[in-house]
This record gives sequence, structure tokens and C-alpha cells, in this order.
Amino acid sequence: MRVGPLKIKLQLLCGDGFAMGPGKADLLEAIDMEQSISGAGRALGMSYRRTWLLVDEMNRCFQDKLVETLAGGGRERGARVTPFGHRVLAAYRAAEVEAARVGDSAAYAELIGMLLDEPRADKPQKPET
Amino acid sequence: MRVGPLKIKLQLLCGDGFAMGPGKADLLEAIDMEQSISGAGRALGMSYRRTWLLVDEMNRCFQDKLVETLAGGGRERGARVTPFGHRVLAAYRAAEVEAARVGDSAAYAELIGMLLDEPRADKPQKPET
Repeated sequence: MRVGPLKIKLQLLCGDGFAMGPGKADLLEAIDMEQSISGAGRALGMSYRRTWLLVDEMNRCFQDKLVETLAGGGRERGARVTPFGHRVLAAYRAAEVEAARVGDSAAYAELIGMLLDEPRADKPQKPET
Repeated sequence: MRVGPLKIKLQLLCGDGFAMGPGKADLLEAIDMEQSISGAGRALGMSYRRTWLLVDEMNRCFQDKLVETLAGGGRERGARVTPFGHRVLAAYRAAEVEAARVGDSAAYAELIGMLLDEPRADKPQKPET
């Protein structure tokens, strides 16, 4: 999420993979909207394969499934975010809000005070070769 | 930075680029240690070109230079983190610590309570094609 010019990314690790992060949270919201994994992937501009792999990774990293698919209908069959998935999503978004409190800190104010809006257009020196 | 299984990444935007982030903060620390841009790049396993581009991007995104090179000696000439660069680095690290307070939140505790240490080894369903 963004706080002024500060981008804050929270990723929840699970073994060597990621249980939750900005992309997976957006995907959960898209599945909730589309009621379909393929529809959510299309809405986010992701391949069906990638969408499905993200759902599978999430589902295996938590105590319960976040997304369940409905029987029948092949690729276009429906899917839904489970009540457990909604809890995970809400807790993740709330954690983002907590982390964004950095925006109220003196450290953030100092950092922003030293930052330019745009990079100076100095002609970059060539690195010596 | 890490708080248990939570990875927190702060990136400071400047125009379309990044003024500061985990990689650039590590690079500043390496330059401070090595007193050389090429030495810092080697220590971090980055090419000289990439190292130099990161330094140039940082230097152009703040009100003053974070790194200055010393005259003479070609690629191996020395470099140092300026007092201004030390201020930026300290403020960025302090902002990371502020953001890490998310680890004290109820939202974090709830999220962690639902997470597994390792993904379940469920044989992934094949995506339908």
C-alpha cells in the first residue's frame, strides 16, 4: 500500500514460499468479486495457470482453505472465498493499515523532508569501464 | 526487514523510480564499509554497472548527494557515504523499525495464528486446461 511516496509491502512467508502478500490479497478480492478463479485472473491480467498456482499456494499455507471451487463446469466453474479466507484477508489488510502508521513517525517525516518529488535530471556520469 | 514470518519492505518513490529501499540501504552500508562503489558491489554480488546505477538513482532523488566519489584512480577510486547520506540511511532504518511495530498488533497476531509453518504437501490439483 502507499503512504505518500512510501510504498509498503507486507509478505507473509510460509516455508520457502509466500502465504500472503499484495498480489494474493488482490486476487482474493477479485475472486470474491468474480466468484470464479479464471474470471479473477482475467480481471487482474494473469494467466489461468499463474492464478491457479497462487490460489493453491495460499490454500496450502494456512490452517484452512481460503478459496474453494464449486463442483462441475470445468475451468469456468465457480469459486468462492471461504469465511476463513475472508478472515485472513481482513487481518492482512488490517496489518497493512498498522504498518502504514509509519507515516505518522518522525523518521518518515525526516525521510520525506530530504526527498525530491522527481529525480534531478543530472546527466548521469558514465561508469568507468 | 523480517518480523517472524512477516517480511516488510519499504520503498520510497521518486518520480517513476525508487529513491530508497532495502537494496539501496544495504548498498549504502556496503559503501560505508568498503569505502568504494566497486568494492560494495562485489560485496553484494552486483555488477559494477548495476551498483553504479543504483548510486546514481539515489543521488538524484534527494536534496543532496548520498554518496560521493573521490577524485582519481579509475574504477577503484574511493567513495564515501556523505553525512547527508548517513542521515537518509538512519531515517530509512528508523522508518523500518516503525513499520515493524505491526508485529505488536492484534491483526498480526490473528494472521500468524492462522498460518502454517510450512505449506501442506497436498498434491496440487492440476489446473484444468
